[in-house]
Amino acid sequence: MNTVSIVGVGLIGGSFALALRKAGFSGRIIGVSSPEAIRSALARGVIDEAHPLEHSAAISDLVYLSQPIERIIQTIGIIDAHVRPGTLITDAGSTKAAIVAAAGRSIRHGRFVGGHPMAGKELRGVQEAEADLFRGRPYVLTRRDNRLESWIERIGARLVILDPEEHDRLVALTSHLPQLLSTALASVIGRESNAPKVAGPAAIEMTRLAQSPYEIWRDIFSTNEGSIDAALGLFIQKLTALRHTVRHPSIEKEFETAAEISRGLREVN
Amino acid sequence: MNTVSIVGVGLIGGSFALALRKAGFSGRIIGVSSPEAIRSALARGVIDEAHPLEHSAAISDLVYLSQPIERIIQTIGIIDAHVRPGTLITDAGSTKAAIVAAAGRSIRHGRFVGGHPMAGKELRGVQEAEADLFRGRPYVLTRRDNRLESWIERIGARLVILDPEEHDRLVALTSHLPQLLSTALASVIGRESNAPKVAGPAAIEMTRLAQSPYEIWRDIFSTNEGSIDAALGLFIQKLTALRHTVRHPSIEKEFETAAEISRGLREVN
Repeated sequence: MNTVSIVGVGLIGGSFALALRKAGFSGRIIGVSSPEAIRSALARGVIDEAHPLEHSAAISDLVYLSQPIERIIQTIGIIDAHVRPGTLITDAGSTKAAIVAAAGRSIRHGRFVGGHPMAGKELRGVQEAEADLFRGRPYVLTRRDNRLESWIERIGARLVILDPEEHDRLVALTSHLPQLLSTALASVIGRESNAPKVAGPAAIEMTRLAQSPYEIWRDIFSTNEGSIDAALGLFIQKLTALRHTVRHPSIEKEFETAAEISRGLREVN
Repeated sequence: MNTVSIVGVGLIGGSFALALRKAGFSGRIIGVSSPEAIRSALARGVIDEAHPLEHSAAISDLVYLSQPIERIIQTIGIIDAHVRPGTLITDAGSTKAAIVAAAGRSIRHGRFVGGHPMAGKELRGVQEAEADLFRGRPYVLTRRDNRLESWIERIGARLVILDPEEHDRLVALTSHLPQLLSTALASVIGRESNAPKVAGPAAIEMTRLAQSPYEIWRDIFSTNEGSIDAALGLFIQKLTALRHTVRHPSIEKEFETAAEISRGLREVN
């Protein structure tokens, strides 16, 4: 692997470039992004050079799509005409089924492997990129690929192979549902003008995600509607059951089981 | 104020004792608690001496009830016969209506002021007590009282006056609802054996409260059932509305409003 293109040089794309370098990648890293992102990425040494998509696709062994989901889908629709046969194309989108389906329709010369690094932070942009952003975090691929797997291992991430539909169903529960719970909680608390006066650590913590900007959620909602609806349905059902047992002894067992699951999530992570 | 009794010398009672000392209280601090808690509190210098409830009540100017809620209600039922006229009695229970109602039935010689310091941490017991636990945190009183208000100010807490029913309604939204959401979320995630593999920071953060031990929730549920039920009802209604608008443009406004509320909670705290 001699040449890598990062398409969309923001927090994730920039971090992937830095992580590759730190892991010993000695080839060229090309950025394809907005003029501001390119300026910032060149200044920080995140990328070596910048080119338009068509040109960089034609000279790359790996094309890393780290744009918003709908932009990834658009890029997938036009990139195949420009790549050499066998060029590895992957992405970092937060949902996988719509992206992998688009690749199935459009990628012929290249080899597409859907990806989702389960990492991030509150601030965005290439100026926030970190070589260790993926270290110890799950990195989902939608199919096996030796070249990509070996780099994921070298950047310190934990490889998880999941088919696109299973991925989308699971992240609906572990990521999209928590976001909607936090948004709904903030909304309900906000109706009471005196609530902020008594808000303790629980309210603060549980409404943090509510500050997440909608622009990153629009595409997630439009590409994972079914799984999100199912996750919301399961959750409302569970919460309604808890509501009916708040004073019943059986809720003690619910607390114990939930505590165990919560501890289990931390052991893996 | 020369003599203070702390009834139930754990994290909160112990921290109140340490906070009083740090704020310049130079009188006696008596502990009323289990033998282990007393040993530990004496060893750490949290209390000066220990006596049974009847004796310490008889010689105190302030009695601070920092037991579990149902124990506070029991203590309120027997303490009045032992205090001198005008003795200030307050508590640190997480719900207020049931406690204040019990005091209304039983406290004649003493003067009862319900209290709720909105502070805590994950670990419990007097060995975890800290003089600064209440600093910058809300401290609710259910009625005005010059003596108590002046000490709350001196320990660095933010005084909030709320009647007991209003307090219980608000903490149902800001504390009890978040707990049940976290428990329900862990429970729903736990049904999927692959979910831990993809659990990122959102799932970790939103299920932390689920580790809270049920023993502290039993009394909260039994004394705030109505408000908790109402808070759950509001929340389920809001989440159901969000569910129906996940792909509708109006959800953008919901995200913006929730983000604003979330930021507002942090400005106060």
